[in-house]
Amino acid sequence: MEQNNLIIPRKLKGFWELMPKEQIFFSSMLSKIEDVFKNNCFLPLDTPILEYSDVLLAKSGGDTDKQVYRFTKGDADVCMRYDLTVPLARFVSMHKDELTFPFKRYAIGKVYRGERPQKGRFRELYQCDADIIGDGEISLLADAECVNLFEKCFNALDLDVEIKVSNRKIISGFIEEIGKAEISTDILIVLDKLDKISENDAEVELKELGLDEENCKKIIKLTKISGKIDEITQKLQDFCKNPTFNEGLQELQEVDKYLKILGSNKVTYSLSVIRGHNYYTGTVFEGFLKEFGLAVGGGGRFENLCSYFSTKKMPGVGMSVGVTRLFDFLLERNYFKLENFSEIDVGIVTFDETLPDGLKLAENLRREGVKAECLYESKTFKAKMREANRRNLKYVLIVGEDEVKSQNYTLKNMQTGQQESLPISKIVEKIKSTRMC
Amino acid sequence: MEQNNLIIPRKLKGFWELMPKEQIFFSSMLSKIEDVFKNNCFLPLDTPILEYSDVLLAKSGGDTDKQVYRFTKGDADVCMRYDLTVPLARFVSMHKDELTFPFKRYAIGKVYRGERPQKGRFRELYQCDADIIGDGEISLLADAECVNLFEKCFNALDLDVEIKVSNRKIISGFIEEIGKAEISTDILIVLDKLDKISENDAEVELKELGLDEENCKKIIKLTKISGKIDEITQKLQDFCKNPTFNEGLQELQEVDKYLKILGSNKVTYSLSVIRGHNYYTGTVFEGFLKEFGLAVGGGGRFENLCSYFSTKKMPGVGMSVGVTRLFDFLLERNYFKLENFSEIDVGIVTFDETLPDGLKLAENLRREGVKAECLYESKTFKAKMREANRRNLKYVLIVGEDEVKSQNYTLKNMQTGQQESLPISKIVEKIKSTRMC
Repeated sequence: MEQNNLIIPRKLKGFWELMPKEQIFFSSMLSKIEDVFKNNCFLPLDTPILEYSDVLLAKSGGDTDKQVYRFTKGDADVCMRYDLTVPLARFVSMHKDELTFPFKRYAIGKVYRGERPQKGRFRELYQCDADIIGDGEISLLADAECVNLFEKCFNALDLDVEIKVSNRKIISGFIEEIGKAEISTDILIVLDKLDKISENDAEVELKELGLDEENCKKIIKLTKISGKIDEITQKLQDFCKNPTFNEGLQELQEVDKYLKILGSNKVTYSLSVIRGHNYYTGTVFEGFLKEFGLAVGGGGRFENLCSYFSTKKMPGVGMSVGVTRLFDFLLERNYFKLENFSEIDVGIVTFDETLPDGLKLAENLRREGVKAECLYESKTFKAKMREANRRNLKYVLIVGEDEVKSQNYTLKNMQTGQQESLPISKIVEKIKSTRMC
Repeated sequence: MEQNNLIIPRKLKGFWELMPKEQIFFSSMLSKIEDVFKNNCFLPLDTPILEYSDVLLAKSGGDTDKQVYRFTKGDADVCMRYDLTVPLARFVSMHKDELTFPFKRYAIGKVYRGERPQKGRFRELYQCDADIIGDGEISLLADAECVNLFEKCFNALDLDVEIKVSNRKIISGFIEEIGKAEISTDILIVLDKLDKISENDAEVELKELGLDEENCKKIIKLTKISGKIDEITQKLQDFCKNPTFNEGLQELQEVDKYLKILGSNKVTYSLSVIRGHNYYTGTVFEGFLKEFGLAVGGGGRFENLCSYFSTKKMPGVGMSVGVTRLFDFLLERNYFKLENFSEIDVGIVTFDETLPDGLKLAENLRREGVKAECLYESKTFKAKMREANRRNLKYVLIVGEDEVKSQNYTLKNMQTGQQESLPISKIVEKIKSTRMC
């Protein structure tokens, strides 16, 4: 697109791009999550954005999903990754003999989905994933660890999360019990929609799948069971005698035991949690910010990560924070109060003869971890103060000849107009104590 | 590619992927550079990987460069970015009325180049860029700031860098003076090859461009001038009376003055620095690790960042660290001594009855910033110790019932075999003091 021989600068629809001020808060969010992952002994993995199409689409039998960004380069048929799980499976399969299991890895990166752009949906988005992959088997402690990790992420973000935990085996066991195991996936798809469609509509759909009136009612009732572990146990005790059902309940109890040891306190149990992906086979969980009515990710256990690439059985448990959507949501609600934020801690205002002193002072402050900027591009005192205002700076530091001599500089709070004459150490202290991010 | 109904897991050639242990060091490298950028008041920008092709290829007049990853999605002709500069130009042009100038932004991200894979060349690579963009004009302090920033990056990485600085105007002025301004770019291309081809070959090429014997010799002699600012000044003083030439020298002197104020001490001046990109118009610089004979990036000043998108003149100065190549190079030379590194700080070895205590201890240690992992997947004491060895752990912490009672735990150094009974605070201290990364 041209205009006056110029290309009109524009970005692709549905591709997220933040202004620097916003980016600072988003990067800080990612970094807090990453610190939680690292601190909990998950190891970083940064796979390429591009993969061979047959590898990336192994799960779908090589069919091109319309949403996938797929193209040919040279003689290679390639795709941009649409999640971080398939690249993990590829990596683990390639390196299974070099890795030590359980292998705990985290990945924070962009994924691509050619969805129709709409509110809260992006074509390029970040995922924050953490998974524990076992060799042959993996204990239920790993399930508890992932739920707990998810909780820790939100604690680090200072967001009050509610985590609803279930176990797929409970509902699967019930479906088995009523003789409908072969259409289990279809039933789960209907039940997963219960937060969007009415119970009546769900009943109609379940009947169409061949369930009778009584079992329709019973299975919908099952999904409504929630509460603390004792309450759940009591309600489920006599619900169904199926062994898979009981195994699911026992697993839930064991996970709860571990969660208590680990100190989790944001967890409730709710059989309404299904999780869309049909690769989950045991524990499943979802996080919500009650205050905003917002789903923020979740995770669960899968029987075999690498089934498309290897005959070796590698079960795992994982969790994922939907951080792009979360941030976008919070941003829109002005959660971060960006109007009060300045990207730079302090602007240094010098006079012609004190420019070198101002530059050196900026260097000294930076060494102390203060983001100090000598406003050298604006030439006069007035212009420098105007620049400070344009930049929404909270503080400026005025460096005249007297200040240089006394080593006490005038710190002006641009919001209150208050001025103080302070030595560097006090300036550093004051600025650091009033930072927003 | 299939085998026994399985897809063979493999990654694309030329796409870099590190093992977790390596990734920890690479991430740490990126993070040290990012801290330098932030501390120096550069603001983060994270543009999409994909852009409209006409926008990304504006510079090349819309021609598809063979190296670019370009494809069609829906009705959009798109490219994967091949550098971080064009997306910056697009962003600045789109948001010029919202940004405050000088606009200092940094970007750390992946770029894509379909080069023939070979040693040190990658198709997906990280760039660490920082640029200062001005509105209309920008002072030479910005040039000094970028050179100084580059130096700070390598100081943060604890790598001894040598930065060679020049100014394009000096050689351009000389070319002007000998009446060859219209083939200036061609001449610069030849001179830029002087580290790869012999002087004789360069002379032949310059003669083919129409330079006479004397000027060939003179221009090659010019590129060999190097030293401290006084030495350079002396050598250039009577070399040529061209005004552009003199302007270049004066700019170099002014930049040197600022670099001294900022405390740079890794800089020398060398007219051999040309920098390939023909958008540089003034200061140019390149970094080398002398110890390894390795070029590690550089930067310079450009007259107009956004000429393809806007009529507004926006000059800038930038720098870029070639971090993928650098890390790959150091990794190959075993610079990081990875064989001595363990990803986890300490493994916790429990007995059946102390598992809950071990889990809680791990939580306590993590709260203190220690990466402690309770080795719960290995069931017996022996198996846990074997896992500790497999993981190359430096320390294990043995948690028996006596230890739980006394709150003193047995810390075993797996390399020396030494054991000590210590309270948590001492354990934290000891472990943190012996970390490699």
